[in-house]
Amino acid sequence: MGASRAGLLRTRFLQPSSLQIATAALFTVSASTLPVYAAKGSIDVYPPNWWVGMESPLVELMLHGDNIANKKVSVNREGVVINAVTALDSPNYLFVTLDISNAASGELIFTLTDDAENTSNINANNEAGSAKVSHSSANSSSNLLSYEFSYELQPRDSESKSREGFSAKDAIYLITPDRFANGDSSNDDVAGYRDIVDRSNKGGRHGGDIKGIIDNLGYIADMGFTQIWTMPMLENAMAKYSYHGYSTTDFYQIDPRFGTNADYVTLSEKANEQGVGIIMDMVLNHIGSGHLWMEDTPSDDWINNEGNFVATTHKRESLHDPHVIESDIEGFSDGWFVPTMPDLNQKNPHLANYLIQNAIWWVEFAGLSGIRVDTYSYSDKGFLSKWTARLMSEYPSLNIVGEEWTINPAITAYWQAGSHRHDEYVSALPSVMDFPLQAALTSALTQEESWNTGLGNIYETLATDFLYGDPNNLVIFPDNHDMSRIFTQLGHDIDKWNMAMTFFLTTRGIPQVFYGTEILMANPDSSDHGIIRSDFPGGFKQNSDSAVNAFTGEGLSQDERWAQQRVKTLLALRQNYPNVFMGEMKHYAPHDGVYTYFRRAEEDDGSMIMVIMNKQEAKVSLARYSTMLSKYTQATRLSDKTVFGVDDTLTLPPMSATVFVVN
Amino acid sequence: MGASRAGLLRTRFLQPSSLQIATAALFTVSASTLPVYAAKGSIDVYPPNWWVGMESPLVELMLHGDNIANKKVSVNREGVVINAVTALDSPNYLFVTLDISNAASGELIFTLTDDAENTSNINANNEAGSAKVSHSSANSSSNLLSYEFSYELQPRDSESKSREGFSAKDAIYLITPDRFANGDSSNDDVAGYRDIVDRSNKGGRHGGDIKGIIDNLGYIADMGFTQIWTMPMLENAMAKYSYHGYSTTDFYQIDPRFGTNADYVTLSEKANEQGVGIIMDMVLNHIGSGHLWMEDTPSDDWINNEGNFVATTHKRESLHDPHVIESDIEGFSDGWFVPTMPDLNQKNPHLANYLIQNAIWWVEFAGLSGIRVDTYSYSDKGFLSKWTARLMSEYPSLNIVGEEWTINPAITAYWQAGSHRHDEYVSALPSVMDFPLQAALTSALTQEESWNTGLGNIYETLATDFLYGDPNNLVIFPDNHDMSRIFTQLGHDIDKWNMAMTFFLTTRGIPQVFYGTEILMANPDSSDHGIIRSDFPGGFKQNSDSAVNAFTGEGLSQDERWAQQRVKTLLALRQNYPNVFMGEMKHYAPHDGVYTYFRRAEEDDGSMIMVIMNKQEAKVSLARYSTMLSKYTQATRLSDKTVFGVDDTLTLPPMSATVFVVN
Repeated sequence: MGASRAGLLRTRFLQPSSLQIATAALFTVSASTLPVYAAKGSIDVYPPNWWVGMESPLVELMLHGDNIANKKVSVNREGVVINAVTALDSPNYLFVTLDISNAASGELIFTLTDDAENTSNINANNEAGSAKVSHSSANSSSNLLSYEFSYELQPRDSESKSREGFSAKDAIYLITPDRFANGDSSNDDVAGYRDIVDRSNKGGRHGGDIKGIIDNLGYIADMGFTQIWTMPMLENAMAKYSYHGYSTTDFYQIDPRFGTNADYVTLSEKANEQGVGIIMDMVLNHIGSGHLWMEDTPSDDWINNEGNFVATTHKRESLHDPHVIESDIEGFSDGWFVPTMPDLNQKNPHLANYLIQNAIWWVEFAGLSGIRVDTYSYSDKGFLSKWTARLMSEYPSLNIVGEEWTINPAITAYWQAGSHRHDEYVSALPSVMDFPLQAALTSALTQEESWNTGLGNIYETLATDFLYGDPNNLVIFPDNHDMSRIFTQLGHDIDKWNMAMTFFLTTRGIPQVFYGTEILMANPDSSDHGIIRSDFPGGFKQNSDSAVNAFTGEGLSQDERWAQQRVKTLLALRQNYPNVFMGEMKHYAPHDGVYTYFRRAEEDDGSMIMVIMNKQEAKVSLARYSTMLSKYTQATRLSDKTVFGVDDTLTLPPMSATVFVVN
Repeated sequence: MGASRAGLLRTRFLQPSSLQIATAALFTVSASTLPVYAAKGSIDVYPPNWWVGMESPLVELMLHGDNIANKKVSVNREGVVINAVTALDSPNYLFVTLDISNAASGELIFTLTDDAENTSNINANNEAGSAKVSHSSANSSSNLLSYEFSYELQPRDSESKSREGFSAKDAIYLITPDRFANGDSSNDDVAGYRDIVDRSNKGGRHGGDIKGIIDNLGYIADMGFTQIWTMPMLENAMAKYSYHGYSTTDFYQIDPRFGTNADYVTLSEKANEQGVGIIMDMVLNHIGSGHLWMEDTPSDDWINNEGNFVATTHKRESLHDPHVIESDIEGFSDGWFVPTMPDLNQKNPHLANYLIQNAIWWVEFAGLSGIRVDTYSYSDKGFLSKWTARLMSEYPSLNIVGEEWTINPAITAYWQAGSHRHDEYVSALPSVMDFPLQAALTSALTQEESWNTGLGNIYETLATDFLYGDPNNLVIFPDNHDMSRIFTQLGHDIDKWNMAMTFFLTTRGIPQVFYGTEILMANPDSSDHGIIRSDFPGGFKQNSDSAVNAFTGEGLSQDERWAQQRVKTLLALRQNYPNVFMGEMKHYAPHDGVYTYFRRAEEDDGSMIMVIMNKQEAKVSLARYSTMLSKYTQATRLSDKTVFGVDDTLTLPPMSATVFVVN
């Protein structure tokens, strides 16, 4: 099962890096060991390095090499305690738990041996009573051999823990890296990777890469986005349909067709220089079938359903259902999405540690400002509790947003930290994707107005915010990479598009805009994901058949340019009033087809934002909103700076969303 | 404002009653007082009697009579303490709070006087520091007059407090009294009531009455219903559109066109004899504009919006909205439904007491098994907390179901006792109408099946039961008096109707069936309420133009007879397995278009109910349900008693709901 990995496995971490990252798995062999390890020539160690000064004193190394499961492990340094050494079902993995709470940074040398009399330098932590050296019975070679490998403990950056994650003062630009811009055509195809570039194939790779994003950071920052969420860029060594990135085949390596780990760090650094943070899209639920773990599975329980495809029920509600039959929880959590995405069993504590440490590694290594977790609830629920707790312990102000695709806010809210839950479950997840609000907005703009349809959908959904621990920390969006473009959802009506974008860029929450939505990208004829994620105009200059360039505006229609400018204007508003958008939202119940809301800082700082949405032409006396407006004197319309008094009667055009700065 | 009440006001409580109810307001006047009171001749007292032995030691009498607001009040009996006497804005009302905790039953004589030197017999409870005798300044007549009236304290029935309310072992028959059966044509029109019988007017009165229900209790009980909820039957002295009963003009009198208070008690007694309980439909939110309170308003704050029509926003979510602007709470709670339904301000403590005592009075007086509260959340929220707490204190096992028409279960759940709430609100309401499940069922049967449409609607809605304090105590229904008949909602497809009815008569909760739904009553051409609430065939024999009689089956189509029998069969199942229906529901997530669930007693008593719903023809191996079935040996199909093994593969017809008794 799983695509052949060709010779790719050994290339990991040997890429040049501007950060001088630890090139782990540098295995020193003596002549006598060559017969055993020469076949592959290395032991892989995950994570490839670690840091001293983390909150947790422990790090668990996964060692992978031929027939190492019955080796004894020792380390050459005082202060580094081997708490446990565990082998599972495969003879080729060994899990080594280190306590480095008293360790200094620097290089460690580990020795693996099967000489039982040569184990006195294992620093088993017997004090804690937790020392546990276990071995599988597999492959108990009697050769007396000894191997060494080095491992680096780096000093943790002093400001790492206190990093600020994305928040409601931000706006996120969501990019499909393969479809945004091709900055380096030399990596379009990489030897050994079978899914080759074919821009005519909607499900194929189109050549976009990290360099393409770096080259266009100016556009992104100039538009006013302050965060970039890229769809996953870890290696997806799959035979086909790999461009989307959700079939991880290496948790520690950027796919070479996107660039290198160093390129990713460069992206982060250069984005940061422009005031833009990087949010990594992490997949905890599954891997790609081309992952090593499908060739050489660490344990029989590593992959759900014993490594065989059984489809998930997608019924996330089973997790909460008081009438549930237990097998439906398994059917949801343990089922797979598709046969090429083996589903991970995060109940296995070693896999859990692996995934926790992997996430921390990337935050620390690449200077991330946040994480987006794919298919959040499909992972084991207990694991998610541990994963979020550990991440937030290491980075108390980080932000992490989980994808929970349901329009039932009682279920999305369940996962957010601070929400009340009906059970004893603990979650430290700071944010959830607000699918209910996306659905409400679409209904609001496509339904006829009546007492219980139309704009009332928005009002009711926001009123249901009482379910959430922190509604203003939800990530909100008009569309994303998994659904039709909002312009298409709204029947290609630019006025409705404007209402949608104005709403999402001004209501409570952290707005996310999918690349191209700012220029009315649409999918009128197909809801195929490959069409939804079409190439961004101007990003593929080398081999483009179009003169359109959205980065420069060249070739865009008047509507598209207007739309782009509208998003820019709204994002500038957010940047001008960060405290307002970190503050509260107040809204009036829709009345006569008019929905009006306000944003203002928690500590009144003199300015307030007012937004009026209406579908039919309307005359609205601002006196209606005197509760909110009485302390102010004027309302300046964002679009043209026209100034109104707070008692004026406004004539609002049909199907409009009008923004005012109130002073 | 308000329709003229003609001479009706004085007829109250003067009806013959089999229970010898207190005929309050028997005012004894001396000759000298005649000039003052002769014009109307009485003081009305509400409640018209009370009971000793209630949980609360207090009862607050509302006295109504010309110019009584400045009178002193005294009572002739030791053990009856007048805690407070309060006048409000009208000169014609006086509120007298009695502490009767040490009183024996029997007749009290109250004396009203304005002789200040003659007040020594007011038993002001100064100990509690709460004695409060206040008077409006209005109409301070200097006449020294004295009046007496008698008031009866009855002994409370020893079993009253412990009465059992309706529950999940019951099934409720919802009746529109005007449209069910005309048992007494002599009361079709009553002198002084202007809305006269006109069966050709869909919004007019058709003549149905209490006698009609009593006459057909046999049908109801024989069908298997164990509770009757009648739409309100209190006096609605409105000029037109009065048949529905939701425009109360007298809280203490059955509308004479339905019968008398005594008839209502007879209905309760005769129903009880057949094992059927009576649920009263109570309207706390508003009155009819023909109510005395619109002619002579007790206080300026008695009616919301100062007695003027302002439409409610219907936005119940405002109550919970963290982003709310306070005026929207008022807009919802204080707004009126229509100009003929003045909205009560239950924040007024005297009105609150009046409504609380009125509800208790009817439970106690008529031997009710429960209450249905109309437009529940539209009343003042704080009042609802007090109202439910007091009712449940007097009757700990009573059931009360509130109508909260939203399909958002986070909002319906808010009101149920035992639900978690995001705020400190306290509710003792045992049950809520399950509108979300009604909507889910309709979607389930009208949508195409896909991974997230169709039967999954039911599954997800029931999974969201974690929000409720007690899901099995919700009242569930395929339709009701305010929406299209389920047969119409489902496109007049009898198979879908069967799926709907089978579902609601077997899933968790307390099923309610609207009269006529059991014989496929429909409203294909109009969703007008008057059409939805059409006359029950056979109930209007005196003046019927139809030979159809649903009570006897005469003239029913084959489908209608089949439907009626199906409901009867399902209700018999409920009666045969009360512990099962009081027990748990377990369901499997829909799979391949098949949805299967089980009912079983909390304490396994050997039998279980299994229901399989499917839309396409399906072959289902019962082995799929081994988790539930493994301890059992056979499944007997309800419809034909065919016995299957618990490993058999069944062929299920398309669009079917099949019920099995599993042993």
